[in-house]
Amino acid sequence: MDYPKILEEITAETKSLFGKGKVATYIPELGKVAPEQFGLFLQLNDGTSYETGDSRVKFSIQSISKIFTLAMAFGLVGEELWKRVDIEPSGSSFNSLVQLEYERGIPRNPFINAGALIVTDVLVSHFERPKEEILRFVRALTGNDDVYFNHAVARSERETGYRNFALAYFLKSFGNLKNDVERVLDVYFFHCSIELACCELARGMQVFSNHGLNPFNGERYLTASQAKRLIALMQTCGFYDEAGEFTYAVGLPGKSGVGGGIAALLPGQYSIAVWSPELNGKGNSVLGMKALELFTTKTGRSVF
Amino acid sequence: MDYPKILEEITAETKSLFGKGKVATYIPELGKVAPEQFGLFLQLNDGTSYETGDSRVKFSIQSISKIFTLAMAFGLVGEELWKRVDIEPSGSSFNSLVQLEYERGIPRNPFINAGALIVTDVLVSHFERPKEEILRFVRALTGNDDVYFNHAVARSERETGYRNFALAYFLKSFGNLKNDVERVLDVYFFHCSIELACCELARGMQVFSNHGLNPFNGERYLTASQAKRLIALMQTCGFYDEAGEFTYAVGLPGKSGVGGGIAALLPGQYSIAVWSPELNGKGNSVLGMKALELFTTKTGRSVF
Amino acid sequence: MDYPKILEEITAETKSLFGKGKVATYIPELGKVAPEQFGLFLQLNDGTSYETGDSRVKFSIQSISKIFTLAMAFGLVGEELWKRVDIEPSGSSFNSLVQLEYERGIPRNPFINAGALIVTDVLVSHFERPKEEILRFVRALTGNDDVYFNHAVARSERETGYRNFALAYFLKSFGNLKNDVERVLDVYFFHCSIELACCELARGMQVFSNHGLNPFNGERYLTASQAKRLIALMQTCGFYDEAGEFTYAVGLPGKSGVGGGIAALLPGQYSIAVWSPELNGKGNSVLGMKALELFTTKTGRSVF
Amino acid sequence: MDYPKILEEITAETKSLFGKGKVATYIPELGKVAPEQFGLFLQLNDGTSYETGDSRVKFSIQSISKIFTLAMAFGLVGEELWKRVDIEPSGSSFNSLVQLEYERGIPRNPFINAGALIVTDVLVSHFERPKEEILRFVRALTGNDDVYFNHAVARSERETGYRNFALAYFLKSFGNLKNDVERVLDVYFFHCSIELACCELARGMQVFSNHGLNPFNGERYLTASQAKRLIALMQTCGFYDEAGEFTYAVGLPGKSGVGGGIAALLPGQYSIAVWSPELNGKGNSVLGMKALELFTTKTGRSVF
Repeated sequence: MDYPKILEEITAETKSLFGKGKVATYIPELGKVAPEQFGLFLQLNDGTSYETGDSRVKFSIQSISKIFTLAMAFGLVGEELWKRVDIEPSGSSFNSLVQLEYERGIPRNPFINAGALIVTDVLVSHFERPKEEILRFVRALTGNDDVYFNHAVARSERETGYRNFALAYFLKSFGNLKNDVERVLDVYFFHCSIELACCELARGMQVFSNHGLNPFNGERYLTASQAKRLIALMQTCGFYDEAGEFTYAVGLPGKSGVGGGIAALLPGQYSIAVWSPELNGKGNSVLGMKALELFTTKTGRSVF
Repeated sequence: MDYPKILEEITAETKSLFGKGKVATYIPELGKVAPEQFGLFLQLNDGTSYETGDSRVKFSIQSISKIFTLAMAFGLVGEELWKRVDIEPSGSSFNSLVQLEYERGIPRNPFINAGALIVTDVLVSHFERPKEEILRFVRALTGNDDVYFNHAVARSERETGYRNFALAYFLKSFGNLKNDVERVLDVYFFHCSIELACCELARGMQVFSNHGLNPFNGERYLTASQAKRLIALMQTCGFYDEAGEFTYAVGLPGKSGVGGGIAALLPGQYSIAVWSPELNGKGNSVLGMKALELFTTKTGRSVF
Repeated sequence: MDYPKILEEITAETKSLFGKGKVATYIPELGKVAPEQFGLFLQLNDGTSYETGDSRVKFSIQSISKIFTLAMAFGLVGEELWKRVDIEPSGSSFNSLVQLEYERGIPRNPFINAGALIVTDVLVSHFERPKEEILRFVRALTGNDDVYFNHAVARSERETGYRNFALAYFLKSFGNLKNDVERVLDVYFFHCSIELACCELARGMQVFSNHGLNPFNGERYLTASQAKRLIALMQTCGFYDEAGEFTYAVGLPGKSGVGGGIAALLPGQYSIAVWSPELNGKGNSVLGMKALELFTTKTGRSVF
Repeated sequence: MDYPKILEEITAETKSLFGKGKVATYIPELGKVAPEQFGLFLQLNDGTSYETGDSRVKFSIQSISKIFTLAMAFGLVGEELWKRVDIEPSGSSFNSLVQLEYERGIPRNPFINAGALIVTDVLVSHFERPKEEILRFVRALTGNDDVYFNHAVARSERETGYRNFALAYFLKSFGNLKNDVERVLDVYFFHCSIELACCELARGMQVFSNHGLNPFNGERYLTASQAKRLIALMQTCGFYDEAGEFTYAVGLPGKSGVGGGIAALLPGQYSIAVWSPELNGKGNSVLGMKALELFTTKTGRSVF
């Protein structure tokens, strides 16, 4: 497969989409990012890699961090986790709160904010210093110690993230949040503020495409069965209200973030990260979605 | 792979689940089926096949018929179809009506009843005799002319299916049903009443695992891209409120029916049908779900 | 109290509102009414009456008919009725269907369409010829035999009232509609098509302001306690999503219809009917609402 | 009217209901109240009064305080208030959050918690020391300086009222809460913790039954029109999900609280307060509701 040529084509074919989306501004700090950027990094399981564009520029991974915290929590408590958070797609974002009410405080899945707060709560219960542990975990997965929180982004979200406060207190009212609300939110805002470049993010996804084994340090983080299950979750729930559209158009399990990043993978074969800050109306990167659709079409390699 | 041994093990390991579920009775005719039955048929893309148990006993495919009518309608109108029905998971069944109201009469996906009624409506618009065309289509896909509607089941559902009448009139009130409500429902109830045995159903799924080409008559029914897209839809939306659970536990795209059947496939490799009439609380076959979970675990062959 | 002068002032002060609303067109036949009409009829309990404008022009009473059918059904089955329909305000119209689903087919109150269908169902169960009985009842209450259905309006609604079909089938799916759906809807569409002039409608409301006694034939139709209870229901539930607004601005119990009519009363003192076909965004007559607000302000006589 | 005899009968006829309800425990401090207590105080507009039972025992007025804060805020900002909170009944409590979401952060009415938080927010914006101002206001209305917050109850609610935190942050996320969430909640929890006896509460309602004039100090607090409007609001929205039931059975505007108190009035004639701590499933006092129903039936004096 001529990957360099495919990446070149993708760069050329997505360029015209600059300006079609909007940089997220609901977290004021995120609104400061220059919009016309695009990066892609492909990490094959055999160790080779290919990249194009702004693949070495750090960006705020935001919700993509949820797969890392989920992997940590799932590794710690296993299937017990599903007693506190379900594994079903959430339908429309519109229903998030009423669903939570109807289902008595059990979030639909660990990738909607309510579910991710439960996952964070598990980490807060298990670790004395959960923020440090999360950083350590992401550094290990990416094989790179140059990974940090962006304190300004975390603070910015804390000051404006009223809806997340509402969700957390709502979970607390159902008894499904064990720790202090402010403490859980603090850890949550920080892990969302982690910054990675595409090259690091694609490598960080290898643990999933590699059946639970971290190729960078040879350690096993998840059983093969656990890795498979988290991948299944990414497939059905990883793209908010666009999970169906993404599965339909791209056919890869993955996770997106409002920072404009998308991480995806083909089990046993490769992981891939794209980034471009302009988002469509559903909060996913315009160029990122298109780039992945072109990639699976041109390579003919998707899960379906 | 020693398929005969695997199928034998599955039969042995699921046997203890008889009695854990309940035969569907909301359609009175369906309630007459003997509960302790189990069949499985595996059709490899290379033409070989394996089977066990009641794999030659006909059963009511019910909602599984929706993938056949969807394939027909998608072949006829292509991407235009998604203007009238979305491709996103539906969240919880609880929200079906409010979601339809919120989204102004556009069903979340073609596998929930509201969406399947839109698909049927497309067929009613295109064919003078839609019921005959559906039968012809299913016969061609299964390579078997011995395929019929069960008139008693169709009548039984027509007499008690008030909720489907409500859905159809609700769609009509939004202008998203073009034909007479009674006529669309008639065709809908009939296509749900089709009876197939596992051996026929597994063969009928080959068109999807075979990239749109019907291996039994050599004809192309869908482009490779269209087949891929319908498979993606089965993955995210094929199991009602248990789509996430099924993807998580089994990892195959497919579709279930309240008759107790489940059809699934691994693109390019195999299609498989299981049947056992006892259902869990979410309307999926208890033994069928377990059998497929065991099958992908034992063979190690799923999409993830 | 100088009623003639007050009515004259009201006519003058509401005139400028012509053109601020829109004649209902969702029932095509209703759309044919000339918009710039306004009538008011005041019937004091002492037998004297005052009127202004188009108070003798017949109009389609539509939902106002629900108070007459409710009085009939309540008279027949008494408090038993509230096992099948609740007596609480419905919140927003948006929730009608989900609330019905959440509350297992028990409509919130007898004035929303779902509840009125239950009331009609009671009449269909009790009478062999319910349509004739309803006409007879309304004729007796209004002291006028010149009261008829408008067949064209009833047919027009039957042909386009898909949402009412959806509601009726939904109720049927919960087992809360005893008779054939088509038959109940037929009676429902007909009773909504009754035509009255303000003078007749105001008189028809006397039974409520007169503690259950029909002053025109001396017969008792409801106990004083029953009359009081139906009046309470009109107060909390009579104006759809504007019940609060109406109670706030006018302070009288009553009922509106999309034909542009509003009937209201002050227990023990008077009944009043206004009519003007142009509706506000919530389906209530623009001039009618204003006229009643002016009337209670100028007379200082409301329930509060 | 022989009020002493009527009150005696009511006491006798409600006694058998002790034990049919449950003392509220969701605020732990409230759960400490002895359940078998019942008091009633009737204040006629002519200055005479009648009482029975525990009419001089202080209890936590909880949500009844919302009518006092509403009267303060309405007096301050007038009709402007309705831009931030609506005046419609809320339908079912079940929908509170989804309705808030659907209506973009505008609560349905000022008596549901979300609406009362908006009202409190107005007071926080207008007063430097809102808690002191609220106390001063309630003391003036009741003509009694012996009125205090219960700090233990306020603290108890602050420590367990996660759902109110969720609501407040949700309002904040829509921009409909101007002040700091914690500060608004603090004032809210304190005003709910005010303790009054029936004799004080009935007197405090005189300002409403007396057209806005406080009979105890001769000062006007509301215009007659404003008083009428707040009374209309109590009628349609004062009893949560039982507003219809209460209007139906009692026929008086009023407000209940989970402390077991109910305040009600007949405009121009009397105000009345009852208290008994055991609540029905919808959070209203069992004996209190019954006592008021008996009172309006026996006296024949209600708004309808």
